[in-house]
Amino acid sequence: MLVPSLIERKRDGGALAAREWTDLLQAYGRGDVPDYQMSALLMAVVWRGLTGEELAAVTGAMLDSGARLEWAAAGRPRVDKHSTGGVGDKVSLVLAPLVASLDVAVPMMSGRGLGHTGGTTDKLESIPGFRTDLSLAEVRAQVERIGVAMFGQSDAIAPADRRLYALRDVTGTVPATALIAASIMSKKLAEGLTGLVLDVKAGSGAFLPNLDDARGLARTMVDLGTAHGCPTAALITAMDRPLGRAIGNALEVEEALLALTGQGPEDLMTVTRALAVEMLLLAGRAPDVAGALRLVDGALRSGAALERFRLLIEAQGGDPKIVDDPGRLPQALEVELFEAPGAGTIAAVDPRPLGEAVVAMGGGRRRLGDRIEPSVGFVVSGRPGATVARGEPVASVFARDGEGIEVGMAALRRAMRFGPPEPQLPLLLCRVTSAGEEPA
Amino acid sequence: MLVPSLIERKRDGGALAAREWTDLLQAYGRGDVPDYQMSALLMAVVWRGLTGEELAAVTGAMLDSGARLEWAAAGRPRVDKHSTGGVGDKVSLVLAPLVASLDVAVPMMSGRGLGHTGGTTDKLESIPGFRTDLSLAEVRAQVERIGVAMFGQSDAIAPADRRLYALRDVTGTVPATALIAASIMSKKLAEGLTGLVLDVKAGSGAFLPNLDDARGLARTMVDLGTAHGCPTAALITAMDRPLGRAIGNALEVEEALLALTGQGPEDLMTVTRALAVEMLLLAGRAPDVAGALRLVDGALRSGAALERFRLLIEAQGGDPKIVDDPGRLPQALEVELFEAPGAGTIAAVDPRPLGEAVVAMGGGRRRLGDRIEPSVGFVVSGRPGATVARGEPVASVFARDGEGIEVGMAALRRAMRFGPPEPQLPLLLCRVTSAGEEPA
Repeated sequence: MLVPSLIERKRDGGALAAREWTDLLQAYGRGDVPDYQMSALLMAVVWRGLTGEELAAVTGAMLDSGARLEWAAAGRPRVDKHSTGGVGDKVSLVLAPLVASLDVAVPMMSGRGLGHTGGTTDKLESIPGFRTDLSLAEVRAQVERIGVAMFGQSDAIAPADRRLYALRDVTGTVPATALIAASIMSKKLAEGLTGLVLDVKAGSGAFLPNLDDARGLARTMVDLGTAHGCPTAALITAMDRPLGRAIGNALEVEEALLALTGQGPEDLMTVTRALAVEMLLLAGRAPDVAGALRLVDGALRSGAALERFRLLIEAQGGDPKIVDDPGRLPQALEVELFEAPGAGTIAAVDPRPLGEAVVAMGGGRRRLGDRIEPSVGFVVSGRPGATVARGEPVASVFARDGEGIEVGMAALRRAMRFGPPEPQLPLLLCRVTSAGEEPA
Repeated sequence: MLVPSLIERKRDGGALAAREWTDLLQAYGRGDVPDYQMSALLMAVVWRGLTGEELAAVTGAMLDSGARLEWAAAGRPRVDKHSTGGVGDKVSLVLAPLVASLDVAVPMMSGRGLGHTGGTTDKLESIPGFRTDLSLAEVRAQVERIGVAMFGQSDAIAPADRRLYALRDVTGTVPATALIAASIMSKKLAEGLTGLVLDVKAGSGAFLPNLDDARGLARTMVDLGTAHGCPTAALITAMDRPLGRAIGNALEVEEALLALTGQGPEDLMTVTRALAVEMLLLAGRAPDVAGALRLVDGALRSGAALERFRLLIEAQGGDPKIVDDPGRLPQALEVELFEAPGAGTIAAVDPRPLGEAVVAMGGGRRRLGDRIEPSVGFVVSGRPGATVARGEPVASVFARDGEGIEVGMAALRRAMRFGPPEPQLPLLLCRVTSAGEEPA
């Protein structure tokens, strides 16, 4: 295999054969292709994209580089949800136990915080004792017992993706639709699902802010899932403001507890319900949207969803008492209110400065292996469009020290704009399935 | 310095500041920037190009990574010529002694063969004993004594370019006008010239076959030279057929000896004269083209040019007797005639298969460090447009064994097309100076 000639072909706008991609990624995995050739090729892919056939080959090669979860043939339907990442997005914490309580198996593999966005495993680990480093055997046993497991990516699953992702991260080759799709789908397809729901974020706080890019990514992933025999549906949802009020690991767990009884902020409940409906439809648990919604609301009202979260925490070594007493979650040493600087309207709440500030305050990682301070973050009670009085508290900063408070207050001054209301994206933008696209 | 953010900026079509390029290339030279980041950045440069300011910074950084030739302030004018590379291009062997015999200093740094094209230092080394690995001090002393030195690139000159070129070669990032221009000009500017003439090749045997690409490269290099205070002119010349008749190291030295007395093939003489005129004009040795041409023809006729070549060979340890007795050059063990397969016209002679065959026959390198067999190659006497009889000899193959003869004959069958004449590029296509472009 002459790697330079493969790079040249992609550079000049051509396509590699499926077999060439497979051989190349295997050789890269063995260390026979150096990083400097792979990174040049990745930049050519950012430039030229991948054909559908190439994308399937890349995804398949990464999937085949690791193990898959194996399930009993006649078990419950297995459905997962994946979000492309946002600020304040704690939906997974609510959704996994909620849908599991409705007799759908949810083997949910999640990531760490990435850039300005939080990660589900980081949030779960703010629960004292909670373990996310489950082996595949533990995942399987737990899903068979209580219907749900939430775990981090290990080297068992798609190790080729792991290595490629680390390279992309330092070579400016992350934002390519094809590469993002292949990375996500190679991991999700390893879960052995019967259905997959994608929450593709659009807006300033998303990795692909542009709606058309988000739509393209959704379409690409839905097609990939379908081609691999995993029915897949995507919702494109707004990330031009934070989702819900809480931003930061422990604060988001606390808000998720509220949402598990149906008492969460309205936007969070809307997105959670919409994604739960998609999961139930894919699982064949309801004949239509109305029927699925009735199941969802029942599970929230009855306490079944919250109870399943308690079981999940217990099963994974966490302190289940946080469910009734969220005060047991890590608490910030310093809290300060942020007040409206004048009477008027909240024009916008930009999610990105807030997500970046959580990292700066110690609630995320600047580099692999950094320890996280789970208590820090924000609660932003002032929503875009709300009318406020001068001096009215519209947000709180939670930090470990005065310096963190300063960082947080500065971020709120950048993020919260006051003045004439700015246009906001509709919360649910669009639904993408193998049948086509429709308004969500 | 955050390298990923620099890569991202170039990827997204932005420009790096001059200082960022300088710092980056210095850090790369120190080993503080890994190859995998540099290769991704280079691919982004192939994609997005460089602004004029960026190109100047990259060239300057590579130039400053090594030493420059220093000259006495009031010495002779110093002019060099560089060709972008072709098949049968032995012009440097003729031009350097010719122009030096007209009282212009010619410190000519040349390259090895590259891909299908030959290299001047390889050709010179086919002269028994000839050394091209001169130190900069030796170059200076020899140029001051006899007006000319022909030497290879060493680590003393632009080592950053050397390292970057090796990376480009294996990552599909060679054919970017800006990178080619920076690589050539960083080396040429290190020679401390008062003028530079470029021979930019166009046509199927050139690295940039397309005429517009060649023109863009010429313009870019002329501007770079001018900006660095080195008056620069470029001729774009045809490389859709070999230049002259001989292809291969020793064979080309023999043809150069003919040309040094004005007896070379017409196309070789035309290109050599045109480039010599440009060098003399830049050196201020003649008031106009007609005056320069008279000087050139005088030096060829009088034997002064050939005599200067003899001095050059002697000065660099070679056997000067080859000048009067070319039979002392390495001779091929096997020679075979190639005959016209039928009566008719030679439609075209494609240079690339012939250049590639010389490498395959042992006359070039497949990898760094390969030993070269200097005697192998072709003499193609049949020129495009010539009418030939069936069975008439139109070329000869020179090889070390029967296998080489086979390779050479197969290459001639591919390269020499018979039939209705195909359109040929005019030999001299265009002249590019800081004042603009004009037909050559």
